[in-house]
Amino acid sequence: MAKRLYILSSGAGGVDFMTLEARKAIEECEVVVSYVKYAKELKELLIGKEIYTSGMTKEIDRCKEAIESARSGKTTAIISNGDVNVYGMATLVVELVDEMDLWDEIEVITIAGVTSFLAVASRVGAPVSQDFAIISLSDRLTDKELIKKRVRLALEGDFVIGIYNPKSKTRVEPYRDFLKELSKVDDRPVVIASNVGRAKERVTITNSQDLIDKDIEHPDITMSTLILVGNSNTKLTKNGLLLTPRGYLNKYDLSGELKKD
Amino acid sequence: MAKRLYILSSGAGGVDFMTLEARKAIEECEVVVSYVKYAKELKELLIGKEIYTSGMTKEIDRCKEAIESARSGKTTAIISNGDVNVYGMATLVVELVDEMDLWDEIEVITIAGVTSFLAVASRVGAPVSQDFAIISLSDRLTDKELIKKRVRLALEGDFVIGIYNPKSKTRVEPYRDFLKELSKVDDRPVVIASNVGRAKERVTITNSQDLIDKDIEHPDITMSTLILVGNSNTKLTKNGLLLTPRGYLNKYDLSGELKKD
Repeated sequence: MAKRLYILSSGAGGVDFMTLEARKAIEECEVVVSYVKYAKELKELLIGKEIYTSGMTKEIDRCKEAIESARSGKTTAIISNGDVNVYGMATLVVELVDEMDLWDEIEVITIAGVTSFLAVASRVGAPVSQDFAIISLSDRLTDKELIKKRVRLALEGDFVIGIYNPKSKTRVEPYRDFLKELSKVDDRPVVIASNVGRAKERVTITNSQDLIDKDIEHPDITMSTLILVGNSNTKLTKNGLLLTPRGYLNKYDLSGELKKD
Repeated sequence: MAKRLYILSSGAGGVDFMTLEARKAIEECEVVVSYVKYAKELKELLIGKEIYTSGMTKEIDRCKEAIESARSGKTTAIISNGDVNVYGMATLVVELVDEMDLWDEIEVITIAGVTSFLAVASRVGAPVSQDFAIISLSDRLTDKELIKKRVRLALEGDFVIGIYNPKSKTRVEPYRDFLKELSKVDDRPVVIASNVGRAKERVTITNSQDLIDKDIEHPDITMSTLILVGNSNTKLTKNGLLLTPRGYLNKYDLSGELKKD
């Protein structure tokens, strides 16, 4: 039997955001490989397991550790916060397993999760509803010009937009480009969120003009902030949450009957 | 105390895709309102609860039922498959509660979930990795021209794309427009998926040319199919799964050190 390697989404936030599927996979594992912070959050699930943790920029180390652990015959999980496919560990694990051609040796199973964008959306009413685009502003692995182009096209298409990794202390240019594009369209509601599902959860509803005004000095925008930008129809509800209507109530009356012109 | 109304994501697929948060919320409820099919899937969680179900086009009825139930003092959940914010019930509930100005009377709590796009992605390697756009081809509430424009812009931005509600028996035009746009870019890997996480799960990896060739007669494309379109970098792995590289291994060598030019 091939040895199992789970690429596992722990969901945005703490243990409550995990799926049952993810919990069962962890139960089955002998070894869990994780970024330090997430291992701490999941510690009640990791009792009795062999745990390998490392820091922020050690992704390749963790992947290799997880692969070698599975190869040695131990059922292993490598953990990604949010969803593994959204700027998570899936790519690097699959890339390495493919590069080393280990497909016959290891059974790789991916477990989907709640991505931060949708966790944030759940805190502020119904901000998405319509088509949306997810963009990371990290230029560590993506060309700045391509990031800028994607922001421009997403705004042109009136997508609701989720921005991951907006800026770090040393990396501000893509964020500045993003603000420049944002200033070309009408003002719209914006959500700034961090640590959703965690004790330090912070969610602020504001607007694009506020982002533009505060520029790169905005105190709430860091590497781990998620920004949700509404589309041109997104509005505030009477209690200050967000709503992007789908036009349902324009077309149907409250009884559910098609309105007559 | 305000009465609670949960807008609850049941996750893509059966009970295993639900989060612990969603399960706890259901446990707390006296009344559960759901589309017939999802109530059947969750039946083990619904024992002893008052259940209100209705069919496909009865969304407004279900929302009103859920709202009235919460107003009458019963903790209530209205269930959406996948995530409630992705073409789910969040919009309509929030819109109705706002229209009727019931914010002081009902406490509305939204529970995020795993959306189908990410559930599908988890079945086929690491197809996302990069920025992505989610588009519904249903023109029931969205203008056909806007849908077409969004498809065009998403391809122009080289986003990985998730297509929801591709076509129905009577609604084929937006799907035809989508194929027209797809034929303007280079061939790329495509995933056609239905019923992910369910007994009838079906996931096929193919390419855009296959979609274009079979046109609107494609036997696998229905209203409940999800289509994932890779970007220009998405490729097949040695075992036939998908990988959209992030360029990590171009920039760093396998030891995790930055490569020197």
